[in-house]
Amino acid sequence: MKLPGQEEFEASSACENIPTGEMDSSLVPDPNPGGPSDTDSTEVGVFKDPMLFIQLNELLGWPQALEWRETGRWVLFEEKLEVGAGRWSAPHVPTLALPSLQKLRSLLAEGLVLLDCPAQSFLELVEQVVRVESLSPELRGQLQALLLQRPQHNIRTTGIRPCWGFTDLRKASHDEDTPLKEQHQNALRLKLPPGVEAAAVLAGELGFLAQPLGAFVRLRNPVVLGPLTEVPLPSRFFCLLLGPPTRGRGYHEMGRAVAVLLSDPQFQWSVRRASNLHDLLAALDTFLEEVTVLPPGRWDPTVRIPPPKCLPSQHKRLPSQMREIKGLSRPRGAPAEDRHDHGPHATCPELQRTGRLFGGLVQDVRRKATWYPSDFLDALHPQCLSAVLYIYLATVTNAITFGGLLGDATDGAQGVLESFLGTAVAGAIFCLMAGQPLTILSSTGPVLVFERLLFSFSRDHNMDYLPFRLWIGIWVATFCLVLVATEASVLVRYFTRFTEEGFCALISLIFIYDALCKMLNLTRAYPIQRPGAPAYGCFCQYPGPGENESQWTRTNLKNRDDILIMHVKNSRLFPSMVRKVFSDFSSVLAILLGCGLDAFLGLATPKLLVPREFKPTLPGRDWLVSPFGANPWWLSVAAALPALLLSILIFMDQQITAVILNRAEYRLQKGGGFHLDLFCVAVLMLLTSVLGLPWYVSATVISLAHMDSLRRESRACVPGEAPSFLGIREQRVTGLMVFILTGISIFLAPVLKFIPMPVLYGIFLYMGVAALSSIQFMKRVQLLLMPAKHQPDLLLLRHVSLNRVHIFTAIQLACLGLLWIIKSTPAAIIFPLMLLGLVGVRKALEWVFSPQELLWLDELMPEEERNITEKGQEPEHSFSGSDSEDSELMYQPKAPEINISVN
Amino acid sequence: MKLPGQEEFEASSACENIPTGEMDSSLVPDPNPGGPSDTDSTEVGVFKDPMLFIQLNELLGWPQALEWRETGRWVLFEEKLEVGAGRWSAPHVPTLALPSLQKLRSLLAEGLVLLDCPAQSFLELVEQVVRVESLSPELRGQLQALLLQRPQHNIRTTGIRPCWGFTDLRKASHDEDTPLKEQHQNALRLKLPPGVEAAAVLAGELGFLAQPLGAFVRLRNPVVLGPLTEVPLPSRFFCLLLGPPTRGRGYHEMGRAVAVLLSDPQFQWSVRRASNLHDLLAALDTFLEEVTVLPPGRWDPTVRIPPPKCLPSQHKRLPSQMREIKGLSRPRGAPAEDRHDHGPHATCPELQRTGRLFGGLVQDVRRKATWYPSDFLDALHPQCLSAVLYIYLATVTNAITFGGLLGDATDGAQGVLESFLGTAVAGAIFCLMAGQPLTILSSTGPVLVFERLLFSFSRDHNMDYLPFRLWIGIWVATFCLVLVATEASVLVRYFTRFTEEGFCALISLIFIYDALCKMLNLTRAYPIQRPGAPAYGCFCQYPGPGENESQWTRTNLKNRDDILIMHVKNSRLFPSMVRKVFSDFSSVLAILLGCGLDAFLGLATPKLLVPREFKPTLPGRDWLVSPFGANPWWLSVAAALPALLLSILIFMDQQITAVILNRAEYRLQKGGGFHLDLFCVAVLMLLTSVLGLPWYVSATVISLAHMDSLRRESRACVPGEAPSFLGIREQRVTGLMVFILTGISIFLAPVLKFIPMPVLYGIFLYMGVAALSSIQFMKRVQLLLMPAKHQPDLLLLRHVSLNRVHIFTAIQLACLGLLWIIKSTPAAIIFPLMLLGLVGVRKALEWVFSPQELLWLDELMPEEERNITEKGQEPEHSFSGSDSEDSELMYQPKAPEINISVN
Repeated sequence: MKLPGQEEFEASSACENIPTGEMDSSLVPDPNPGGPSDTDSTEVGVFKDPMLFIQLNELLGWPQALEWRETGRWVLFEEKLEVGAGRWSAPHVPTLALPSLQKLRSLLAEGLVLLDCPAQSFLELVEQVVRVESLSPELRGQLQALLLQRPQHNIRTTGIRPCWGFTDLRKASHDEDTPLKEQHQNALRLKLPPGVEAAAVLAGELGFLAQPLGAFVRLRNPVVLGPLTEVPLPSRFFCLLLGPPTRGRGYHEMGRAVAVLLSDPQFQWSVRRASNLHDLLAALDTFLEEVTVLPPGRWDPTVRIPPPKCLPSQHKRLPSQMREIKGLSRPRGAPAEDRHDHGPHATCPELQRTGRLFGGLVQDVRRKATWYPSDFLDALHPQCLSAVLYIYLATVTNAITFGGLLGDATDGAQGVLESFLGTAVAGAIFCLMAGQPLTILSSTGPVLVFERLLFSFSRDHNMDYLPFRLWIGIWVATFCLVLVATEASVLVRYFTRFTEEGFCALISLIFIYDALCKMLNLTRAYPIQRPGAPAYGCFCQYPGPGENESQWTRTNLKNRDDILIMHVKNSRLFPSMVRKVFSDFSSVLAILLGCGLDAFLGLATPKLLVPREFKPTLPGRDWLVSPFGANPWWLSVAAALPALLLSILIFMDQQITAVILNRAEYRLQKGGGFHLDLFCVAVLMLLTSVLGLPWYVSATVISLAHMDSLRRESRACVPGEAPSFLGIREQRVTGLMVFILTGISIFLAPVLKFIPMPVLYGIFLYMGVAALSSIQFMKRVQLLLMPAKHQPDLLLLRHVSLNRVHIFTAIQLACLGLLWIIKSTPAAIIFPLMLLGLVGVRKALEWVFSPQELLWLDELMPEEERNITEKGQEPEHSFSGSDSEDSELMYQPKAPEINISVN
Repeated sequence: MKLPGQEEFEASSACENIPTGEMDSSLVPDPNPGGPSDTDSTEVGVFKDPMLFIQLNELLGWPQALEWRETGRWVLFEEKLEVGAGRWSAPHVPTLALPSLQKLRSLLAEGLVLLDCPAQSFLELVEQVVRVESLSPELRGQLQALLLQRPQHNIRTTGIRPCWGFTDLRKASHDEDTPLKEQHQNALRLKLPPGVEAAAVLAGELGFLAQPLGAFVRLRNPVVLGPLTEVPLPSRFFCLLLGPPTRGRGYHEMGRAVAVLLSDPQFQWSVRRASNLHDLLAALDTFLEEVTVLPPGRWDPTVRIPPPKCLPSQHKRLPSQMREIKGLSRPRGAPAEDRHDHGPHATCPELQRTGRLFGGLVQDVRRKATWYPSDFLDALHPQCLSAVLYIYLATVTNAITFGGLLGDATDGAQGVLESFLGTAVAGAIFCLMAGQPLTILSSTGPVLVFERLLFSFSRDHNMDYLPFRLWIGIWVATFCLVLVATEASVLVRYFTRFTEEGFCALISLIFIYDALCKMLNLTRAYPIQRPGAPAYGCFCQYPGPGENESQWTRTNLKNRDDILIMHVKNSRLFPSMVRKVFSDFSSVLAILLGCGLDAFLGLATPKLLVPREFKPTLPGRDWLVSPFGANPWWLSVAAALPALLLSILIFMDQQITAVILNRAEYRLQKGGGFHLDLFCVAVLMLLTSVLGLPWYVSATVISLAHMDSLRRESRACVPGEAPSFLGIREQRVTGLMVFILTGISIFLAPVLKFIPMPVLYGIFLYMGVAALSSIQFMKRVQLLLMPAKHQPDLLLLRHVSLNRVHIFTAIQLACLGLLWIIKSTPAAIIFPLMLLGLVGVRKALEWVFSPQELLWLDELMPEEERNITEKGQEPEHSFSGSDSEDSELMYQPKAPEINISVN
């Protein structure tokens, strides 16, 4: 097709257009990339170009009743009009046929291309487009009337039922530039980001045309083209593809091809800057070079592929000059770091040793001080309120349950009241002072085990427990201060995933084991009635330990409720708001349901015993623990030995949790404060020992749940786009509020006494199982039982031989077994040392596994990393060199997988 | 590249090769498609060509240590060598980059193409391939030695750990044609069908080459090329792609492109018949025209797409001449029928009215008689044994439970013994005589409801129940015979999915309701002990109804076990054999676990009461029911009225089940026998009434489970291929064995009395829930609660507006509610009429919904179908004409979705 009025166009409107058949597809870099400098998209880079909303209007009904109908739309993904159902399809990855792209290329090459067309209205635009040589004046008139005809959209207005536009040819010329009411009410409009531009593609078969007619227009200033697009957006691009009827749906497919091209970021970038047809075709050819091809015999083209969780990185596809401008060119070797930045070493500058006494602490304080005001201002968001409520319930559950356990373990020397008071005081102080205020303090399993051992030791030797404990606390605080002074926290770089997961698995197993033990103890204490001798005839039953026996089964029901409520979040029923509320409050609901059932059935389950008065649980003692009591003076010195072990335990416990919380994938902006945190723990150690309150360290599970409840996510705007993780609301207020509320709860004793203990055990069982199932170690344990054929396509398995994976898992299992055995025997006192031994085992693994294998199975320890960097070895792909494969790793979302949760 | 010894080749070996640069890509139909007539693949069509195993050997290690290593293999899908892990990736859909296909095309166009090469060994082949003009004699020698070097395979031999081949350049020339021991032990060999041929692709970068070197060889007679391919298969194709080092992995990608091309059925078909380079390139161009293109900005090319459940149909892709040869060209309008052949009308020729008295019955007998001998021979398969065990357990559970319910309902007039005896006798007779011997008879819910009504009616009016029942049986048998004589069964064509699902939902709800009622009754009869007044002080407890109270919770535990065991089947742990056994015996395991727990805890749950003697449950009655007893004579006439209602019920119940069992998607070869089945039911009605046994009709749920356990599936051979459904082992032996075993079980009373009733109720609850959740109706009910955004991409929703779907669902729900109300009131006696009313409602729906909508929501009734065919309307896509879309429907597996199961 020749372009007739081309010359006058070029003269009158400076539309740049090279209508010749230049077919060379080599991409010549544009010497003047900012060519069309009068548009607003010039300076902004590829990432800042306005987003495009692309709409395909198809000409249907030939020959009887011609009408334009919107049959497809694109922002990131394709949505197709389901004509029969009158609704939009789910967003999906568009698929094209190669011939439609090739036909489109020829049509564009021979058609009209107007770049920077100055049209100010749809009428002007149409007038310019129809002025092609091959058309007779009569045809031009017909075509113009047809193009101005109002298209039918499938608009879903908010709250109003789907409303179809109506066709009125006579009116078309009068109000073609006034957007309709439905367009303004379009619900889609709310989902598009501000500044979005439109592109309209008009395609179809027209019987009276002898030759195909193609036109591609880029408007200099985007204008709203009346009712052309379903959302009244300023249009930047306009494409017309008409031709005589063909076999198949050729023009429909070409229209889709243009739309898909325009929805491609790089094509869009190029075509916004194209100065002639040559540039346009070069952009198309570049697109073609990068498409993924699926073979026809193995892939059904009609299958709709759901949107991937994350879009492929567009970095590699940028024209090289753009990459340089944006400073994006990546040094060699960088990908390997990118891949494995979940270790602490790569991302924690605070873990560099200063070499001065308390140097790390001073640095931490200095760094955190700058953020301190913002730590309060950043909490001004409704999400924080919901987080407070959620974490408060978890904390109270924790305080209640550990209080109960502590009361058991110390035979009443401490109890629920101490637990509440300690949690409130220690937690609040920590939130105000700590380096990582998102941490939630709690009495954890290993510390409790240690305390139980201490108590039975002191009882066996007729010691006064609390004074002995006070001295241990003093010593621990001292040792911890020494660790702070010597910057020992930098050693956390040696805590790799191996250590973290071993520790986490152990704690989870302790949770599960304790919960099960407690329940089994209940069934033993309150046995199931059997139809044996006592049931026949008369017998006496007192409200003593024989009250009732259905606690055991009741607890099981509780757990089931829990699990049922958790499922709700991921099911598709009910709107997402309702589901979110359900899942956020599932722990409360489970507790309430349990208490309700218990009360309704009137079961005599053992209830939480809460003192009604605010005084220490141990009768007769003062709030301040006396320094010696009945103990000889030398015990205060001897206490240094258990204190040493406890220090190791607390150091490990605190720092492993801190490492997990400060992982790079959580994208914390304000950083952590390993030294400062340990300092706070030391101070609180002293305080709690003096007051006879439980000892506190950071609790992994609840702290992760805290962070999870403070996730900032982009709102899922565009159809098919998954919400992306932006970061965490880092502030001190939520934690503070939680602990203030916990303090107030001390006076809620009349309410708390309705909570049956089995309900709490059930919740703890669930917490243990949830934490255990979230770690990679458990996935590898499952691999042990799984035939190779059924194993999931883990990246790990692509790079490490299965046998080696199994050996690694077996070693971890053996370590865990050893720790468990030690914990359960009288040797438990040296348990903290064994925990430290995990790091040694991990170091020894370097003799068994290659750095490449450890990189995939675990992380590298500092020395290994240095070695590899010195030798200049890339830790990966040293053999195959397949640098283009597996690159999805780079696009993997760095959002945290916080799937541990306390409810 | 020129081909030097080309002339001598053509003279000596008649290799057809056109080495010129003919680039015309139009596909000229080969006038002599059987050209290479000396190969065995000539006459066989595209579906009969031998399968190809394609292997890519890559040249690695340039320049230091050159070695060939197998890095990819293809049969249906691609498997990639995970070099680091030393194992094969999971099979996935191959994806290519467009440039690699284009580069391959140019390389082939300029390279050496030998079609029907007569080489008899790898050495001969290599000698021919290296004899190209561009190479110096020295280079030829080097190249030949390199090609003969033994490649490294990653072979997994059965039971032996992965074993890598070894490189030995010196030995290569001696034993290059002897396959290695590992090759013969290759486990992959067992997965390939017999007659499979190999194709070897050798690709890589070679520094000493100045120009690219491409060669494509088709061997006239496939030979085993020594250790070239990992499986010692005769190779048909050989492709060599070498060249100077390039940026990226160009030759690797080209090698993959050749392999993917060869794995494409149509390309393979064409290249097996290609007589020159032109044909080869045309086949490549045809492939390119049909590829699916994914845009680079929306799809990450490194993502591995798992194999689709079913491969796209290759029908459309066949060259037109092939389609005609194979008689595959499909008449216009056929697709619509294809899509909806789950209705009975399209596929049941036995449902044509003959117009003669008993004409249908005679036809049925005649048709089934021809299959009769095979009905016994086809049972010679171990699968049948497992099916017998499985269905026996379901049947016995059914007999026990319904026996218990019947005993309750008739106040002991009938009981477990009658239930066992009746099941055994009626079932065995039916299996020997019936038209559809896969049917399992059982007393079903609606018949039981009817019997309960009858009993209370006769008790209220002081009638003798069993004689009254005998006359009803006689009348029902008579009415049924009339229905057989008048060929009333052809009316089942009016039973569309609407009716089936309404009926199925009702029965499932009755199951669930009854099970829950029974359990709640238990908790009422044996209440939970409360810590109220009676617990304090002394009180008396007798072994009466106050024995124990944990049945209720116990049953819940049973259900949970069930569900846990069901999950096992779909989990990935354990080898599939173990999982299959677990799932097959899950009902037995659940029962055993329940009984074991019950016995272990010594609970006094109500047990199944089984008579120890073989005599009727009602004391004093004879096996033969006396015809009048104490009843007046006219009752025998009056019995005709309830018998009419019961006949309708039995007709509906029997025929709906028969329709479901004879659905086209089960691919039954021997057809059904609607008339013969009804005749058998009539005869058995008479027999059971005379003997005072329960009444029997076909049981949907158990019969489906029976069919499911007899599925014939292709063994999943080739990596990535899903097992395809071949049909059902249609025979009479499994049913017969089941009922013989049931008969023997009458003497197992000492064992059966250990089964607690709550366990049985639990199983019935589960059966009800499973059956209910398997029907499309329930999916639509869920849609009512689901926001449109979260709705699954059901085909239904693509074609029918959501409001219309909801209206249809609401009408179904209303019908179900009405039926339930009628069932629960004294009007229950007219319940069978209301069931018939469902068909009327469905007919009335034609006034509300268009045929298109009904086609998607339901099926068409005979008249509608006729109307549409007469009007010549395609029932679908009348508007959009998008015939190429949604075509995945045609490829949808026709395998039955038997996800109803009795365990």
